[in-house]
Amino acid sequence: MMLPGPTNVPNEVMRALNKPIVNHRGETFKRLYRSVIEKAKKVFKTEQEVMILTCSGTGGVEASIVNLIKKGDKVIVPSFGEFSSRLAKQISDFGGEVLEIKAPLGSAPSYEELEEAFERNSNVKALYLVTNETSTGVRIPWVKKAGSLCSKYDSFFIADAVSNLGGDELPVDDYNIDICITASQKCLAAPPGLALLSISKRARKYMEENPTSSLFFNLPRYFKFFYERGEPPFTPSIPLFYALDVALDLVIEEGLDKRIRRHKVCAEAFYEALEAMDFKAFPKRELRSQTVLAFWHREGINDSQFREYLDQKYGVIIAGGFGEVRGKVFRIGSMGIINSHHVIRTLSSMIQALRDLGFSMEEKAISLAEAKLKELR
Amino acid sequence: MMLPGPTNVPNEVMRALNKPIVNHRGETFKRLYRSVIEKAKKVFKTEQEVMILTCSGTGGVEASIVNLIKKGDKVIVPSFGEFSSRLAKQISDFGGEVLEIKAPLGSAPSYEELEEAFERNSNVKALYLVTNETSTGVRIPWVKKAGSLCSKYDSFFIADAVSNLGGDELPVDDYNIDICITASQKCLAAPPGLALLSISKRARKYMEENPTSSLFFNLPRYFKFFYERGEPPFTPSIPLFYALDVALDLVIEEGLDKRIRRHKVCAEAFYEALEAMDFKAFPKRELRSQTVLAFWHREGINDSQFREYLDQKYGVIIAGGFGEVRGKVFRIGSMGIINSHHVIRTLSSMIQALRDLGFSMEEKAISLAEAKLKELR
Repeated sequence: MMLPGPTNVPNEVMRALNKPIVNHRGETFKRLYRSVIEKAKKVFKTEQEVMILTCSGTGGVEASIVNLIKKGDKVIVPSFGEFSSRLAKQISDFGGEVLEIKAPLGSAPSYEELEEAFERNSNVKALYLVTNETSTGVRIPWVKKAGSLCSKYDSFFIADAVSNLGGDELPVDDYNIDICITASQKCLAAPPGLALLSISKRARKYMEENPTSSLFFNLPRYFKFFYERGEPPFTPSIPLFYALDVALDLVIEEGLDKRIRRHKVCAEAFYEALEAMDFKAFPKRELRSQTVLAFWHREGINDSQFREYLDQKYGVIIAGGFGEVRGKVFRIGSMGIINSHHVIRTLSSMIQALRDLGFSMEEKAISLAEAKLKELR
Repeated sequence: MMLPGPTNVPNEVMRALNKPIVNHRGETFKRLYRSVIEKAKKVFKTEQEVMILTCSGTGGVEASIVNLIKKGDKVIVPSFGEFSSRLAKQISDFGGEVLEIKAPLGSAPSYEELEEAFERNSNVKALYLVTNETSTGVRIPWVKKAGSLCSKYDSFFIADAVSNLGGDELPVDDYNIDICITASQKCLAAPPGLALLSISKRARKYMEENPTSSLFFNLPRYFKFFYERGEPPFTPSIPLFYALDVALDLVIEEGLDKRIRRHKVCAEAFYEALEAMDFKAFPKRELRSQTVLAFWHREGINDSQFREYLDQKYGVIIAGGFGEVRGKVFRIGSMGIINSHHVIRTLSSMIQALRDLGFSMEEKAISLAEAKLKELR
């Protein structure tokens, strides 16, 4: 399974799902809850707050919006694909005045455009940035600089890092990110169903002083229950917490830097090999994601026929394109437990499948990938 | 574990958590999704709609509010415990004008008070009713009549049945319930993390014509994705869906009526035995829940000491009281897979524990329970 989430989950993480269901108000769960939060802080590289909600990544993003954004608040949103434009709409539906910086699919707004947006508009309450656009395989290279800019203009900085936290460089305290959101089923390689949010002290203070109407997404309530009782306010999905705990152990055991490097090398192996197979990367070089890789199809390839054949005959599942480029672009999720074996198996299966379907394919792609993957040793 | 949720989960349901994670946009998950929805309809006894969200029961209740209630809408909320008063606050936080009918803990508003509230107020948009108050063990005996009343006044009827659906009589179409909410970890005996909502056609129509600002809780979006693609709009917790599917199979295999009767008989066995042990039920006879049983402690029993001893020495976990009656009342979750063995083991452990702690306890409680439990055969 080479999808941009859910990703392959290690057996030991799956096994953790079977641990006995316990009272979520009892000591065993409290220990687990605290453990998951502390480990997650290491992955976010934060010494501030982390909260974990029983919902999808979209729920995590919504939690950040309903706790921070009030009617009429000016919010800058770079919009360059399905998830970032959906985010812009979501903020505006909640009454935010969205200043959208648009870029075509496969591209992204530049840092200079962001700077300009801050210069042109006063009292910007927040910047909402999708750091890695799952729908187009575009990664924002100027996240750190955006953090400094938000600091300069005293705006909140919210990063939707659902598809790259844990597989890409995103030290939230260093980058001055107030809220960073990810989900369990992407680079962390746990089963889906939990959203993780890092929250800065100043964002926490703001939320506590300006409470949201939402109960389920009420982050101050999560803090209150955590600090007063060591518990979540609402029944958590206990099996998913067990699994996430083990998944985070694996991240920490490997070492976050090493894990990020593994993602980078595997992605580069894919880019080099697929280019040798005459597939052009969808984003420009400097915007290429190292977790979700998008490529233009070669002339004459029928996207859904190809992907179905690849799945049926070779057991390799990749994803299609989104919106305007549906049918023209395919995507490979290269995240979580991604390793040399996955890369080579995916590439060789694609080569075989395309040959079966009558396309000429050179073998040298594999050796290029293999050479690159040596860097992992 | 004799808690009012999470409850004990059968092994075959736990094992289902380990099925391989699949693409939630692929055929395998689509089949599973449809299967869970169709089976859940049988448990709700509805031929209308059911949707399943990856979140807790509180999330499910919030989904019903944000999709139905607009600023200034008049909403009647009988409030008689932690969950019903929290519900009243939740609706008012979202801008609803709440007409609260209060009753003291251990009691509930009468049907006549509800009727009066409808008579006194015109244009009541909705009645929100907690059918079984988990915090006090109170069950509303007039749910069906409330449904007729809502029909007469053309109001929506929303039932928070988190702690009794699947273990108590609640045929939603017959009772005219527009939205009925439950959660996976209560009477359905699945792991926590999913909320189930039945939704009437007229509630669906209203939501579609008056869309909510929420994205995560946007029920029309769940309908659209289900009817157009057979998928949920956001990444579902795949392992929890596998588990719920098996849990629903078990409900259907047993037969819903038989399952409800099992809950009733086990609850009656508990009430008879505990009364013989000189524990007085917290609610009046006609308001006693058959899934969450609350009792006054006998004079001199230290609640937390007793419950901890019972857990440590006999491995039986029961719950304490809520709010004003914390320390004075204890609660037994008698739901899900509850059977004769659980009832007898809980009772005999309680008797032994209390004797150990120096209280006189008669053995006859056990024979009373055993006699009652014979009805299960």
